[in-house]
Amino acid sequence: MKLLIIGGDAAGMSAASRAKRNMPDMEVTVLEQTADVSYSACGMPYNIADPHRDMNDLVVRKADAFREKQGIELLTGHRAEAIDADGGTVTAVTPQGKTAVFPYDHLILATGASPVFPDVPGRSLPGVMALKQLEDGRRIKEYIKSRQVASVLILGMGYVGLEMCEALRARGIQVAMVKPGPDLLPWMDRSLAQVVSEELAANEVALHTGQTVLEIREQGRRLSAVTAAGILEADMILSAMGIHPNSALATEAGISLGPENSIAVDKQLHTSRPHVFAAGDCADAYHVVTGQKTWIPLALRANRAGWAAADVVCGRGADIEGVAGTAVFKVFNLEVARTGLSMAEAHRAGFDPVSATIRSRSRAHAHPGATDLHVHVIGDRISGKLLGAQMVGREGAAHRINAAAVALHAGMSVERFSGMDLAYAPPFGPTWDPLLTAANQLVKQLRS
Amino acid sequence: MKLLIIGGDAAGMSAASRAKRNMPDMEVTVLEQTADVSYSACGMPYNIADPHRDMNDLVVRKADAFREKQGIELLTGHRAEAIDADGGTVTAVTPQGKTAVFPYDHLILATGASPVFPDVPGRSLPGVMALKQLEDGRRIKEYIKSRQVASVLILGMGYVGLEMCEALRARGIQVAMVKPGPDLLPWMDRSLAQVVSEELAANEVALHTGQTVLEIREQGRRLSAVTAAGILEADMILSAMGIHPNSALATEAGISLGPENSIAVDKQLHTSRPHVFAAGDCADAYHVVTGQKTWIPLALRANRAGWAAADVVCGRGADIEGVAGTAVFKVFNLEVARTGLSMAEAHRAGFDPVSATIRSRSRAHAHPGATDLHVHVIGDRISGKLLGAQMVGREGAAHRINAAAVALHAGMSVERFSGMDLAYAPPFGPTWDPLLTAANQLVKQLRS
Repeated sequence: MKLLIIGGDAAGMSAASRAKRNMPDMEVTVLEQTADVSYSACGMPYNIADPHRDMNDLVVRKADAFREKQGIELLTGHRAEAIDADGGTVTAVTPQGKTAVFPYDHLILATGASPVFPDVPGRSLPGVMALKQLEDGRRIKEYIKSRQVASVLILGMGYVGLEMCEALRARGIQVAMVKPGPDLLPWMDRSLAQVVSEELAANEVALHTGQTVLEIREQGRRLSAVTAAGILEADMILSAMGIHPNSALATEAGISLGPENSIAVDKQLHTSRPHVFAAGDCADAYHVVTGQKTWIPLALRANRAGWAAADVVCGRGADIEGVAGTAVFKVFNLEVARTGLSMAEAHRAGFDPVSATIRSRSRAHAHPGATDLHVHVIGDRISGKLLGAQMVGREGAAHRINAAAVALHAGMSVERFSGMDLAYAPPFGPTWDPLLTAANQLVKQLRS
Repeated sequence: MKLLIIGGDAAGMSAASRAKRNMPDMEVTVLEQTADVSYSACGMPYNIADPHRDMNDLVVRKADAFREKQGIELLTGHRAEAIDADGGTVTAVTPQGKTAVFPYDHLILATGASPVFPDVPGRSLPGVMALKQLEDGRRIKEYIKSRQVASVLILGMGYVGLEMCEALRARGIQVAMVKPGPDLLPWMDRSLAQVVSEELAANEVALHTGQTVLEIREQGRRLSAVTAAGILEADMILSAMGIHPNSALATEAGISLGPENSIAVDKQLHTSRPHVFAAGDCADAYHVVTGQKTWIPLALRANRAGWAAADVVCGRGADIEGVAGTAVFKVFNLEVARTGLSMAEAHRAGFDPVSATIRSRSRAHAHPGATDLHVHVIGDRISGKLLGAQMVGREGAAHRINAAAVALHAGMSVERFSGMDLAYAPPFGPTWDPLLTAANQLVKQLRS
């Protein structure tokens, strides 16, 4: 049996490895357009932060290991050009520029996602960068070094942009961020977002909200981003405006799309065409809170969906669990975490959401070193169910959010969640875990 | 309506405050035999660690605040002597040594637990201490200071003993621990317990397992604990052999007992006698995994049960959620956490338990500062359900355990748990959260 996989990153290589483990005799071929497979993409900001680290540190497993130890036919430098879903073939361009046709019994699309660039003049100037693939990381690091970059303008204020803030400031680089919308982290409760905003200010990051970049110009060795309000200058511009799914190949093959043009898949990762699966950042998923399709491209889901698709191909498939949209990121010394829906998302999904926001402490009463921990929880007035949670603090937010995530998977009511037997010891929190204190408040709100 | 509460610590004061909030006109009287109410008992080891801190730092709310701000009749120095459950009265001895009779409409027993002392000659010598009430903490701290204690022998190797190890070593005091049983933390997977054992050794704590103390002798200013193997000398002996529920008053009133002589209560905290409730360390609880009665005296449960009993008294009661036995403690630089059943407990409860034990990392591949994180998870071969989890590591164990705790409350299968959408970012863990990696391994074990 021939399994063909397009894309050799998290989902693709997870699928390839899993298929080989499940069925060692299966012919597994991966077409990857870059030279890099299996690396920690999310680690790039932290690598860039340290000029002495090699970007190749982030490679988890080299291409040759997949080839030699696992017997995977891993073809790097191969760009897939077209899928013939009726004939069961994929056409690709080889590193030599030739066209080759690859037949398959089963095909897994793991084409990932690409960074969004501003659709303005100057977007292709050399100093305008994005961070998605390992090669992007190398290019940015080299650019900072060779050009002695002293200032960076970041377009967008999402996860990647915020992580890059910390990385660049660690190298003494001036950082400004700009976005068209009015709010930093619009999905976040305003009082929690304010904590993040203060952390950015304390670390001398300038925020320009409500400003659309209309043009990028090169002036000598510097770049200028022109907005209606004026000109923002920097040595380098990082486009961190989000990503979009790489679904063009699928669309051209007549495969149906889901939210935000991601590839629509069912709970066993089947696309709308037989024998064609999709997994990772290119594919959609069911949300455990709404039961509806969503597109939340994150690393764990990519790995898990790659496994799951391989299991289905190998005849041992089970329905994959939905996503809760659990995420965490670090902004300087703050841990910022979320799971489930925001208030706006809950409204849009047809719930009658009610929220409670509290400030608790990261350690017990009188325990040295305690800091503030801000918690925002959301419940549905109609069903009483927990819909989402958000946390911000210097410690104790990152892993705590997982308790709320599991409660969302279990479809728990806020009241039931408030009764959970969570861990307590003075160095790690108050007797009533901050999540429980927030849930207790929300129970009152839901009853009133 | 008269609500009488015996015991003014976590459960008792939670109940009193809650009752007054629910029904401001209720007459609420609390009989507390010591002078201290509402303090962070679990914070005492950390307070003892620092000679410059006052033990009163741990008082969360003073007695007068309960009296004046909340209108609670809080009678400190009153020792309850007898309950007349037929007549609806409690007899107590006042601070002046007089006998007083307190009538009640509802009675909440929040009598707590007391430390176990070795039943050997010398157990009452001045240097033999235990740590349970705030006054114990003051006495130990004063004793260390006035006697210039340079060595301590701890009887027992449980949570409190291990926390006290760290506190005493922080003050440069030599520490040895002794217990009759063969194993450190016998409920823990051996490979995880080994990590704790190594941490103790690295901090120069001597462990004497398999040794029963037969007698304690005073020799000048030093104490000697005599065992069959020899003599262990120290300036002070701390008895940290566990606690037993204070249920004598209840027994004498004909109230039924549960596991380990704790007071038996139903899901609304009723004892076997009408209008008599019990909450906190003196009472039993239902275990969410076994559905059976258990006695796991911990601070969060005490607070929650106090609330819940007051709600029932006030006619707004609901069934209290069971306990999962979730606990965390710090041993020097290690976080040690557990929830649910151990292998031995699972066997005893009639399950067919299977376990998986893994070593993962606390941060992502190549992220600076990563340390080992050890995870042990247990599932039931028959039902496929998750039964328990244990974690040990320098970071990331304390709050992570809560995700497993919520899964236990939800009665999740190991397979379902392995599909949870948990948070990931490089500073906080690998893409596959260590709990998920352990669950994935356990799924394989359960299938084999």
